[in-house]
Amino acid sequence: MNSEIIAIGSELLTPWRQDTNSLYITERLNQLGVSVAFKTVVGDRLKHLADAIRNAVGRTDIVVITGGLGPTEDDLTREATAEALGIGLKRNPDLIAQLYARAAAWRITMTRNNEKQADVLDGAVVLDNPRGSAPGQWLDIVYGKHRKLLMLLPGVPSEMKPMFDEECMPLLREALPRRFIATRVLKAALIGESAADARIAPIYTQYTDVETTILAHLGDIQLNLLCSKPAIELAQARVDSLAGKIEEELEDHIYSSQGETLEQIVLYYLEMRGATLSVAESCTGGLIAERLTRVSGSSRAFAGGAVVYSNELKTEFAGVDPKLIERHGAVSREVASALAQGIRERCDTTVGVGVTGVAGPGGGTEEKPVGLVYLSVSDRDETEVVERRFGGDRERIRQLASQTALDMVRRRLM
Amino acid sequence: MNSEIIAIGSELLTPWRQDTNSLYITERLNQLGVSVAFKTVVGDRLKHLADAIRNAVGRTDIVVITGGLGPTEDDLTREATAEALGIGLKRNPDLIAQLYARAAAWRITMTRNNEKQADVLDGAVVLDNPRGSAPGQWLDIVYGKHRKLLMLLPGVPSEMKPMFDEECMPLLREALPRRFIATRVLKAALIGESAADARIAPIYTQYTDVETTILAHLGDIQLNLLCSKPAIELAQARVDSLAGKIEEELEDHIYSSQGETLEQIVLYYLEMRGATLSVAESCTGGLIAERLTRVSGSSRAFAGGAVVYSNELKTEFAGVDPKLIERHGAVSREVASALAQGIRERCDTTVGVGVTGVAGPGGGTEEKPVGLVYLSVSDRDETEVVERRFGGDRERIRQLASQTALDMVRRRLM
Repeated sequence: MNSEIIAIGSELLTPWRQDTNSLYITERLNQLGVSVAFKTVVGDRLKHLADAIRNAVGRTDIVVITGGLGPTEDDLTREATAEALGIGLKRNPDLIAQLYARAAAWRITMTRNNEKQADVLDGAVVLDNPRGSAPGQWLDIVYGKHRKLLMLLPGVPSEMKPMFDEECMPLLREALPRRFIATRVLKAALIGESAADARIAPIYTQYTDVETTILAHLGDIQLNLLCSKPAIELAQARVDSLAGKIEEELEDHIYSSQGETLEQIVLYYLEMRGATLSVAESCTGGLIAERLTRVSGSSRAFAGGAVVYSNELKTEFAGVDPKLIERHGAVSREVASALAQGIRERCDTTVGVGVTGVAGPGGGTEEKPVGLVYLSVSDRDETEVVERRFGGDRERIRQLASQTALDMVRRRLM
Repeated sequence: MNSEIIAIGSELLTPWRQDTNSLYITERLNQLGVSVAFKTVVGDRLKHLADAIRNAVGRTDIVVITGGLGPTEDDLTREATAEALGIGLKRNPDLIAQLYARAAAWRITMTRNNEKQADVLDGAVVLDNPRGSAPGQWLDIVYGKHRKLLMLLPGVPSEMKPMFDEECMPLLREALPRRFIATRVLKAALIGESAADARIAPIYTQYTDVETTILAHLGDIQLNLLCSKPAIELAQARVDSLAGKIEEELEDHIYSSQGETLEQIVLYYLEMRGATLSVAESCTGGLIAERLTRVSGSSRAFAGGAVVYSNELKTEFAGVDPKLIERHGAVSREVASALAQGIRERCDTTVGVGVTGVAGPGGGTEEKPVGLVYLSVSDRDETEVVERRFGGDRERIRQLASQTALDMVRRRLM
């Protein structure tokens, strides 16, 4: 079974906005064993809309349409679907009453143009929208001798997502042959995409029934494994077997085998060991702390720390001797180490992290170029410092530095 | 003139990856006065590809295709275009020689399958690709009695973008009627999208020759104005006139009239006044510092600060009296104010910021619910504290808190 997703709205054809609903819908459809063959984005013009819908039902089995169900003149999805499929569209009095009742409950004046949201395609099942005014529609029709399923859904993600889960998924499950999907998400830090692929491609290519996707982002790799079988045990066994072999090959680069973030893993290890963490950040400017505190409950293991951009604050908050900075420079092995030790003592935590470097684009010298970063992790027994030379722009350097620091803490705790 | 952008690649039909090339191409096409009517994403299957290309040339004047030009069996864009348009495809001996020469220079072994990258459509102009192996192609043809322009470009953004700018833009400029585009980007903080729209719609709807787009993201609104005219002065005068009226209407909500970020504006005002800033962050966990230090050169005005997640660190780094925390609680007007004053003194800066709140999802009480945040800005003359109750999840609460804090600093400096 294949499908097409159509996103409707002229704003999705500007340089500034992108359809993201289709990613959510794709994930759900894949879970049901349905692949997505086409995605189309089209503006609010009746001719273009009808053309897109006609193409879609001509070439795929399932068509999911988002957007264009509102009350304004630009909202033409219902009319376009009727025209494309050659079926009728009738105003439903029950729905009109519902629209007026909802407007009254929400203390909104309902203008006449809102009534078009009660137009229903012949044979359609109306999909309830408790989070907005426009109901969705589900069509199960025969078109050109083939059975076709169509869904008309709102474009607002907060209305579309629950409608898809609560209304469309049960209808799709009933309409489609039964498949079970098992997935695994492995994550690895600080290994290149091609280096990782060179090592694991010989493994995953042997699992022709498991779909393996590699996503890479600034020092972080995500491996998505997906297997669809008539029984869940069969599917689960295959992804688990492949995951095991990949973990063996990539060894301690793998930090997560269930999709957790590196921050979550670091905090988990800290809690498991009854340990606490503090950070003194210069070139990362708060990014490490920000990443850790994204995790709910991070306060149990993360105490906090200091953003020590200026030399004075390196001394004030992490007790770095000004003479050390004078002798070796703020970006140095010695200062990174002093930051880690100093912040650990000042915050009275088990582990301290210190980072200092040149994030650029200005401030680089021949001796200390843009991208040079010193990172240090200190506990009672040992203070480790590493030197890294990251390429790329300011954002990339900061991101890779924060990733390296978090991974150093993870390895220390392992 | 309208256009369609086709992105080719099965990976773009997964839940994890999205075509972003089309945003770049849309911006460039708009600059030439060309609108985008459709965007299509299609996987690496010859039948699907040919179908998508046939649809596109049937319904638009300009078709830009990205991806599928590489050397592997999955790379079928050339073949699909030939099939869709009914034109020939011939291997070009000069290009083969170039491919081998480049491989030698890059010390890469060139396997036989690479030669298919030298296949050229009848009548196509070859577009040079100095950053990769696959050349692009430009077609200026008559199809169904209409003139059509087609571009076949690589899918890798770092190859596609320079090829579009250096090869396609000059060809497009020559082929299209001459237009000039003027743009303005206004930004406003902490005003809702619908509230802003209600105030400015009566204004921008009178400028029918200026395209106005509103983008909203967590306490931040971006207004994009675009006008296309036969002379640049005419276009510029129209966007400037509309921008002026919008600025008048939204008053001091507008923080930027040339697209700068709020962080950039805050740092700009600080530098202008010879002032410096420090922050003491509890619930934002380093986000304010991280946002400020994203800006290159931020060290000139931003000294740093502390992430004071635990009560002990509020005392240690910002000198907050433990009795104050005991009496009023860590999340209180009094502690926010003490954080701002304390960090300002400790960092010896002109302005200090203190933030404390409940980011959730845990930790809320009836008296101090999730979303309650106290924010304080302190300078020599005055210490201001505000209370906010933000809705939504942890990320939203932290983002809105950081936005509010930065905007408070901006208003203090104005």
